[in-house]
Amino acid sequence: MRGMTESLASYLNANQQRHLDELFALLRIPSISTAPEHTADVHRAAAFVAESLKQAGMTTVDVIATDRHPLIYAECLEAPGKPTVLCYGHYDVQPPDPLDLWETPPFEPVIRNGNIYARGAADDKGQMYAHIKAVEALRAVHGRLPLNIKFLIEGEEEVGGASIARYVATHGERLRADVALVSDTALYAEGVPTLCIGLRGLIYLEVEATGPSRDLHSGLYGGAAPNAVFGLAQLLGKAKDAEGRILIPGVYDDVAEPAPAELESWKSLNLDEARYLKEEVGSSRLTGETGRMVLERVWSRPTFEVHGIGGGFTGVGSKTVIPAKAVAKVSFRLVPDQDPDRVIAAFKEWVARETPPGIQTEVRVMNASPAVMVSPDHVAIATAAKAFSEVYGRQTVLIRSGGSVPIVGDLATHLHIPSVMMGFGLPDDALHSPNEKFRLENYYTAIRTVAHFLTLYGG
Amino acid sequence: MRGMTESLASYLNANQQRHLDELFALLRIPSISTAPEHTADVHRAAAFVAESLKQAGMTTVDVIATDRHPLIYAECLEAPGKPTVLCYGHYDVQPPDPLDLWETPPFEPVIRNGNIYARGAADDKGQMYAHIKAVEALRAVHGRLPLNIKFLIEGEEEVGGASIARYVATHGERLRADVALVSDTALYAEGVPTLCIGLRGLIYLEVEATGPSRDLHSGLYGGAAPNAVFGLAQLLGKAKDAEGRILIPGVYDDVAEPAPAELESWKSLNLDEARYLKEEVGSSRLTGETGRMVLERVWSRPTFEVHGIGGGFTGVGSKTVIPAKAVAKVSFRLVPDQDPDRVIAAFKEWVARETPPGIQTEVRVMNASPAVMVSPDHVAIATAAKAFSEVYGRQTVLIRSGGSVPIVGDLATHLHIPSVMMGFGLPDDALHSPNEKFRLENYYTAIRTVAHFLTLYGG
Repeated sequence: MRGMTESLASYLNANQQRHLDELFALLRIPSISTAPEHTADVHRAAAFVAESLKQAGMTTVDVIATDRHPLIYAECLEAPGKPTVLCYGHYDVQPPDPLDLWETPPFEPVIRNGNIYARGAADDKGQMYAHIKAVEALRAVHGRLPLNIKFLIEGEEEVGGASIARYVATHGERLRADVALVSDTALYAEGVPTLCIGLRGLIYLEVEATGPSRDLHSGLYGGAAPNAVFGLAQLLGKAKDAEGRILIPGVYDDVAEPAPAELESWKSLNLDEARYLKEEVGSSRLTGETGRMVLERVWSRPTFEVHGIGGGFTGVGSKTVIPAKAVAKVSFRLVPDQDPDRVIAAFKEWVARETPPGIQTEVRVMNASPAVMVSPDHVAIATAAKAFSEVYGRQTVLIRSGGSVPIVGDLATHLHIPSVMMGFGLPDDALHSPNEKFRLENYYTAIRTVAHFLTLYGG
Repeated sequence: MRGMTESLASYLNANQQRHLDELFALLRIPSISTAPEHTADVHRAAAFVAESLKQAGMTTVDVIATDRHPLIYAECLEAPGKPTVLCYGHYDVQPPDPLDLWETPPFEPVIRNGNIYARGAADDKGQMYAHIKAVEALRAVHGRLPLNIKFLIEGEEEVGGASIARYVATHGERLRADVALVSDTALYAEGVPTLCIGLRGLIYLEVEATGPSRDLHSGLYGGAAPNAVFGLAQLLGKAKDAEGRILIPGVYDDVAEPAPAELESWKSLNLDEARYLKEEVGSSRLTGETGRMVLERVWSRPTFEVHGIGGGFTGVGSKTVIPAKAVAKVSFRLVPDQDPDRVIAAFKEWVARETPPGIQTEVRVMNASPAVMVSPDHVAIATAAKAFSEVYGRQTVLIRSGGSVPIVGDLATHLHIPSVMMGFGLPDDALHSPNEKFRLENYYTAIRTVAHFLTLYGG
C-alpha cells in the first residue's frame, strides 16, 4: 500500500470492519447541536469520542463542561524533541430537515454504492474519527507515536463554536502546538489530493421586521397598514442585484483579490460548469458576479444569503392577514481582508436606511468570524502535501474553501499556528443537506493519509 | 324600547341570558374550516346551528353534505304575498394562531369590559346567531313571521366558500328570494347605524419558488447558486413601491373611481387618522397610495398583500443553507370594475417576467371573487336603513367595506338579488386576529334591529 509500512498496512486491513462499526455507532447518535431536545445525544456523542481516544492510547482524556456542549481534550506527549500536532474535529451535526427528502433515515447509517449515508458522515464525524483511528494504528503498530499529539474536539461547530473559541483564547499553554490538523474540508475531486489554504469567514444574523401591533384583517386594513412580511421581503430583495452582486454599500471595500498564481491554478482545475450546475446545484442556471469564474465566486468573493424566512400564515389553506411580524436568518461569507465588524456596521446602516416606511427592523448578530489563509511554504503544510501526494500517487492541489471553519481563525489568532486543512470529503457529499454521504474508501484513505503525514512530520 | 312592540321587547329581555348562553355554546366549538384536524368540530357547529333553526320554528331544516363542510338550509314560508328574505351567515372561523397573544383562550368565551371575547364572536357566529334569535323572537311573540324567511348558512366562508358557491349556482329555485340579509360587516363606529353597499373582491394565490434541487451548503455554493428564499423575496418586493402603490402592470386598468357623492359622504365621516393609526393599526405610520384618503385606500382601491412566507431554516439557532424552495401566500383585493381573470393573468405574466435568474416560480390560484355594489334605492336597502335608524335613533350611514363576502357576489350573479349588508361588529373587533371580540350590547341590538327590519319589510 502506498505511503506506509507493511505492518501498518496489515493492521489497517485487519481492522477495517471494526473501524467502520465504530464510526457507524457514532453516526447513530443524533448529536444535533442547535436543537435543545438533543442535548442528551450531544453528551452521548462526546462520551463516545472520549472513550475512543482512550482506546487509541491517549495518556490524558478530558471531557470539559462548557456553557453549552462539552469539549474533549486529549494528549499523548511521549516524543520529546518532536513537533506537536493539534488535531481538531467536531462531533456535532446539522439538523437533518427536511426529513422527507432522505432516502434512508439520517441517523441509521448504511452503505450504498460505496458511500456511507448519514447526517455527519462527512461533516465531520467520519473525518474526525479517521484522525483517532490513524493515531490508534500508529501506536498499536509501533508502540509509540512519531510525534506529540493533542486532540481538541468540539460539539458546537454547527452553532458557532462559542465554547471552543473561549477555550482556545484562554488555554494557550495547554494547547501549544506547532500546527493544527483540521479535516473539515473536501477533496477537490475524487482521487485528487487536496490541501485547503484559505477559508471564508462568516457573519450570521437575524433580521426581525415589525409592522402593525397585531395581525390585521387584510380586507379591512389592506391599502393603509404596513405589512411586516412584505416589508422584510422588500428590504432583503434590495440586498443584491438580479445576478447576485451585493448592493449594500461598503461590503466590497476591503476585499483582497487572489494572487495571480492562485487564480491561474484555479483556472487549471478546469471546473466543468455544466456538470457543476447539473449535478451539484441542480437549478436552471448559476447566478453570481458576472465576469468572475465560479471558483472565484465561491472561494474569494463575499456573499449575502437568506437562509430562512418566516412570518404570517404558512399553514394549509388560506388566511387573509396582514402579518405583524417576520424574521429572516441571513449571513455574509467573508474573504481576506474583510473585517467582520465593518461589514456588520455596513449592514446595520443599510437596514436602517432601506427599511420601508411603517416597518421597524432589528438586527441580531448570532456569530462572526473573519476569513483565514495559511502559507503553503510552512513546513507542516509542505509535509502534508507530500504525504497526501504519496498516498494518492499524484500531485497535491492547493485550493480554498468557501465554507467557514471558525476554529482555524481562532488557532491562528491565539496559538499563532497554521492549520493543515486536509479534507477527505467530496463536493457532492451533501453537507447540511438531505442524504449526506462520505465515500467509504475515503474513510480508509483518510486514516492512511493522516497516519503517513504524522509519520513524515515526526521525521 | 325603540323600534319594537312592548311584547317583543319584553320577550327579548326575558330571554337575554338564554340567548347569550346559546351563543357561548356555539363559540366553544373550534369550527376552524381550514384545519383538517377540526373537521369534526365543524360538523358539531353545523348540527348546533341546525338545532337552533328548528327551535326558532323553521318548518324545514336541512344539513346538506358537500365536498368539504356542511351547508345548512332552512325555511319558513307561511306569509303568502309577502316578500322573502334569505338570511346568510357562516359558522366557521379563522385559525386562532398566534395563540400566545390571546388574553383568554379563543374557544372559551368570556365577557370582559362589556365585550364577548372569542374566535368567531363577531366573525361571524355572533351576528349569524342574532338572525336566528330575531326570527325565534318574532315567531314566539306573534305566532307567525311577518314575511317569508329562508336561511343559508355555510361552514367554508374562511376558506373560500366553494360549496355554497356551487349550491347557489345550482339551486336558484329553492333559494328564490327578494333580498338577502348578510351580517358579516361592521358598524362604522359604535352607535352609528351602518349599511354597507360595496365590498372588495379577493384573489388568493400561492407563489412557490424553486432554486437548487436540494438545500445547499451556503459556504460551498454561496456566490454561484440561486437561493429560492432570496429569489422569492426579491420578486415579491418588486410588487409595490415603498408607499404601497402596486407596480404590477395592468392591475389598475379597470379600477372605477367612487361617485363624487360617495366620496363626499366618506369625507364627512371624518376618520381620525391619528386614532386609526394608534388604536387600530399600531404601526409607526400608515402606508398606501399617497394623495388618497384612508377610506379610499381600504374601500375603493385594489391591494396586493403577502399573508405569509416560509422557506429554508426558521428553527431555533442557525443553519447555513441555500434553500431549494420557498412559498408565499398572497392576495389581491379587487374593486369595481376589476375582472379577477384579468388581474390573475396580469400577475402571472409579471411573475414570469420578474422571476430572478436561476429561480423557477409557480403560481396557484386558490380562489377568486369580484367586488360587488348594491343600490341604496332598492326598497329592501331603504327599509333596512329606516329600521336601523329607528332602533339606533340616528341616521343610517352608507359605507363600503374593504373586506370580501364572496356570497354577496354569488347571490347577485345567480339569484339576481341584492344583499342588505347590515353588520353589528366594530372596526376594532380584531377579526382574524388574537382577542377577537363582539360587543355584548351589539349582540342584543342586532337581534332587535333584524327583528325590526323583518317587521317593517313585511309591511
